[in-house]
Amino acid sequence: MNQYWSEKAKTLTPYTAGEQPQQKLIKLNTNENPYEQSPKVLEAIMDASKNLRLYPSPNADALREKIAQIHGVKPQQVFCANGSDEALAMCFLAFFAGNTQVEENWFPLKNEPFTVKTMDITYSFYPVWAKLFDVPLETVPLKEDYTVDIPKMCGGQGVIIANPNAPTGIALDIAQIEQIVSSTSGVCVIDEAYCAFGACSALPLVGRYQNIAVVHTLSKSHCLAGLRVGYVIADENLIHALETIKDSFNSYPVDMLAQAGAIAALSDVSYYEKITAEIIETRDFVMERFQDLDIRCLPSCANFIFAEFGKNTKFVFDALRKRGILVRYFAGTRTKNFLRITIGSQSDMKILIKNITEIVRSL
Amino acid sequence: MNQYWSEKAKTLTPYTAGEQPQQKLIKLNTNENPYEQSPKVLEAIMDASKNLRLYPSPNADALREKIAQIHGVKPQQVFCANGSDEALAMCFLAFFAGNTQVEENWFPLKNEPFTVKTMDITYSFYPVWAKLFDVPLETVPLKEDYTVDIPKMCGGQGVIIANPNAPTGIALDIAQIEQIVSSTSGVCVIDEAYCAFGACSALPLVGRYQNIAVVHTLSKSHCLAGLRVGYVIADENLIHALETIKDSFNSYPVDMLAQAGAIAALSDVSYYEKITAEIIETRDFVMERFQDLDIRCLPSCANFIFAEFGKNTKFVFDALRKRGILVRYFAGTRTKNFLRITIGSQSDMKILIKNITEIVRSL
Repeated sequence: MNQYWSEKAKTLTPYTAGEQPQQKLIKLNTNENPYEQSPKVLEAIMDASKNLRLYPSPNADALREKIAQIHGVKPQQVFCANGSDEALAMCFLAFFAGNTQVEENWFPLKNEPFTVKTMDITYSFYPVWAKLFDVPLETVPLKEDYTVDIPKMCGGQGVIIANPNAPTGIALDIAQIEQIVSSTSGVCVIDEAYCAFGACSALPLVGRYQNIAVVHTLSKSHCLAGLRVGYVIADENLIHALETIKDSFNSYPVDMLAQAGAIAALSDVSYYEKITAEIIETRDFVMERFQDLDIRCLPSCANFIFAEFGKNTKFVFDALRKRGILVRYFAGTRTKNFLRITIGSQSDMKILIKNITEIVRSL
Repeated sequence: MNQYWSEKAKTLTPYTAGEQPQQKLIKLNTNENPYEQSPKVLEAIMDASKNLRLYPSPNADALREKIAQIHGVKPQQVFCANGSDEALAMCFLAFFAGNTQVEENWFPLKNEPFTVKTMDITYSFYPVWAKLFDVPLETVPLKEDYTVDIPKMCGGQGVIIANPNAPTGIALDIAQIEQIVSSTSGVCVIDEAYCAFGACSALPLVGRYQNIAVVHTLSKSHCLAGLRVGYVIADENLIHALETIKDSFNSYPVDMLAQAGAIAALSDVSYYEKITAEIIETRDFVMERFQDLDIRCLPSCANFIFAEFGKNTKFVFDALRKRGILVRYFAGTRTKNFLRITIGSQSDMKILIKNITEIVRSL
């Protein structure tokens, strides 16, 4: 019964987030960080809790100053949002929505239909935003080895790329990103949700290209998935477009506690460097054990691995679930032989390896 | 320079929120509650702060259960959002976006263009969302006395109404709302941001009409503007449409601390009943003093008053600002002779009255 649904709502197939189980499981399915946030976050939240009767800063001014300082850009080059998902949704509206065709000024006159390029295997929210905001998406297949086909990603009118890519974990280097950015006539959105775990950030390109927007989140690297803070770094002109969208949607998207907690987290650099190094160490340890078991993993620069189980993949997924371990399975021709496994704590990963060993030996 | 802005972004004129001043002012411009939140809110936030590394409940399950319990509806009839502004934006997408014309099944065949009715003087964010999501809006003028023209609001295909209306503060009774809801073929969105301060809620209509969505916020009545929590109560079918939009935009819109703080606030009923009664008492006191000064106020059911200063309005606004008191002025043919003044603390309102008295006597 949907007579009251808008025509828009009727057309949508929403994004499916990883399960958030109620019961106690070893949760390796949504790439959360296994470490607690910096103790400074709690202090900052307590302080900010006294003023909740007032509206927060609409543009999160103190937070954007902190972000600007960390990345060596101007505060006017920073846009804060309610998680990087909201930031990415707003990028679709600010840079792509309503564009129908590209007008070229030279002969022969060509009027190509407008499309935004992305990969066939990547964050599955991109096609959902494209559908929501009527943005035509062109999906470029990953190569056989699951790396990005750079030449085919070049020469478009807009691009959205996760780097490192999800769920593969494979990263591009900055020269490859520059190749795409410099050849694209519109905006390139680089989603660096997992970049802190070993990939190379595209941020140095922001000063040199006016058409790149780099998106970060505090959910993974800063153990703050529960607080919902993401941000965009770009040329001031692009940030102004994002602010125009934000102020046409929700004036105050980042609440007061999220702003305060995020500033505290971003200030405690040494704490997060330490835990990030530990996660990378754990990832290397897990990948070595998987190699011992003859389980292929794609080379990961993220806080997860994409491990191949062939025709047994769904069986291994179900067997792990029965043993209280939750990982992520993506049906789909090119992903159905892999499981995406978040790098959890060292002790949880030892339990995972013990169970995976038993399961694969039983096959 | 906007070559990289989307065609959509180029068309938008964003909503202008009330100023959030940096210096110390008596702030009566954005309808914040002058009281501190319930002390239980801080405790709940501290408890929830321990788990920030994990994602929050995507549909705010515990919060929606609390809201359902308070209003005597099912949890499936509740949708939670990042403030009522986000809830309202999603109502535009879920109920109105993409609708182009109404098909009638009887003769003579008529294909009216689809429009959503609202008032000419109301929350100025409505036309901004309409523009963002390409929803045609039909603005029905308020009557001479600034009340809603009920017959002209009837018989449409969709409706959005603030009750009490802002910035007038004038409320409809439930029979008037029912008249509109029962005569509208599509969804009626009733924005009850200020309803707690003396207006009659349309919630009893939710059980009887499948095309009404009632929107609440904790920003005003529950002193939590800084926490960003709003919600919608409606038939399950409408809530399902909102969830479809939400899951196509941002899976986790309400952060963990906001969910916990909102539950604590909604649980402390007696505290908020007490402060709401005090705000109403202060409002009556201020309106009496204004009457003594021959300043007309529209009859307010909100936590603000709309007071008429005629040709001196802008002068009074500026004079108050110079004296450290910030109120809200809306340019516009039918609003330019009024100031919207938030009901602050009793002591702040005494300072306001003293200053207004001096200013109007000096004219």
